[in-house]
Amino acid sequence: MDAHERQFDKELHDLKKKLLHMAALAEEMVERAITELTNRDEGPTHDVLKAEEEVNRLQIEIDEEVVRLLATRQPVATDLRLILAAAKINSELERIGDLVVNITENVHVLVQQPPLKPLLDIPRMEDIARRMVRQALDAFVKGDVLLAQAVIMTDDQIDALKDQVLRELLTYMMSDPHTIERALALILVARHLERIADHATNIAQDVIYHIQGRDVRHPKTPRATPPEQP
Amino acid sequence: MDAHERQFDKELHDLKKKLLHMAALAEEMVERAITELTNRDEGPTHDVLKAEEEVNRLQIEIDEEVVRLLATRQPVATDLRLILAAAKINSELERIGDLVVNITENVHVLVQQPPLKPLLDIPRMEDIARRMVRQALDAFVKGDVLLAQAVIMTDDQIDALKDQVLRELLTYMMSDPHTIERALALILVARHLERIADHATNIAQDVIYHIQGRDVRHPKTPRATPPEQP
Repeated sequence: MDAHERQFDKELHDLKKKLLHMAALAEEMVERAITELTNRDEGPTHDVLKAEEEVNRLQIEIDEEVVRLLATRQPVATDLRLILAAAKINSELERIGDLVVNITENVHVLVQQPPLKPLLDIPRMEDIARRMVRQALDAFVKGDVLLAQAVIMTDDQIDALKDQVLRELLTYMMSDPHTIERALALILVARHLERIADHATNIAQDVIYHIQGRDVRHPKTPRATPPEQP
Repeated sequence: MDAHERQFDKELHDLKKKLLHMAALAEEMVERAITELTNRDEGPTHDVLKAEEEVNRLQIEIDEEVVRLLATRQPVATDLRLILAAAKINSELERIGDLVVNITENVHVLVQQPPLKPLLDIPRMEDIARRMVRQALDAFVKGDVLLAQAVIMTDDQIDALKDQVLRELLTYMMSDPHTIERALALILVARHLERIADHATNIAQDVIYHIQGRDVRHPKTPRATPPEQP
């Protein structure tokens, strides 16, 4: 391996490290937003917004690095696919950041009013969604197809939980109109968590494509964005 | 211009044409889904699902073409940014297709029950969202920064309409629990239309970045995914 190749290897390594850092930030944001909801304390909102700014800054930095690497290193084959996967993962992570900000907006509505019910499924969804993000990034860094496939399989659990949350909250809304605003806010929190899991699934699919050169984005099942019931 | 350059120019031209075709399909899908809702006729669902398959097929085709062009042409500067913009627009258009499928799922719920109210704002949102998608693609193909900026400005109209729809439907839900299921389905339709407009906004931002090399994705305002009220 000559000096040129060693330098390129280091650049690819740094690119992966930056994505890991961005994913860790996104994961932390999700955790904080839901802790805010369960503890009924809006304190962490400020941290979430600060973390989102950092995620946005990283997104631009990584995108610029991708353009620079493509232009100067003229990669082919595996390296090219790795860099393109990094670009996609970058944009998925930024969207996760946006979704967490949306969650905090709903949390803001919820903490102004008495709690509607003890929250069980939403913290469970948060836990699974965060693990999916972490594992999807691990799969990318380690080139682990099996782990990426496991992430894709987990998406069904999140969908099932979201449906359960929806059914339960609809019952609340029907029986007492005073619960409607809170129930709707909780439904939106659940939907945002589900979409965060969808982005983790997209990352896992990009990882498989990058490793195998095989497109798994539009199989019959599972779908990255499944049709929904209102 | 030598034969090699002429061939590359033709390839870039074909790439743009494919994206225009994909955008036209996505636009048509949006129109059909909302016509389905206003006419209370589920006939077009089949066409929407067929169009989505074609959109998914095009996404994979365009992604493969992007990898091929990067590997064989080793583009730099403007050409490189054009190809990367094409890759991003490709994924935005595919997401629009997914959102339309989500809309038809809600329409399915709505047409089973008596109409809740005459629909005015939702068809208006559909009209604006479709125009935004079309203009964002026009801006890309013509390299028109002003048109891309106009698309970004229009996003506020969609957000205002969505808020109006939400407020009105919340009133229905509060005053009569029998309207809850339908009102929720309509709220989700409005949210999906708003997200389609967000993707058009993302495309417009990519176009400006591609032309000016300047990142407009995280200004203070407007945001691609604004914080929301439930």
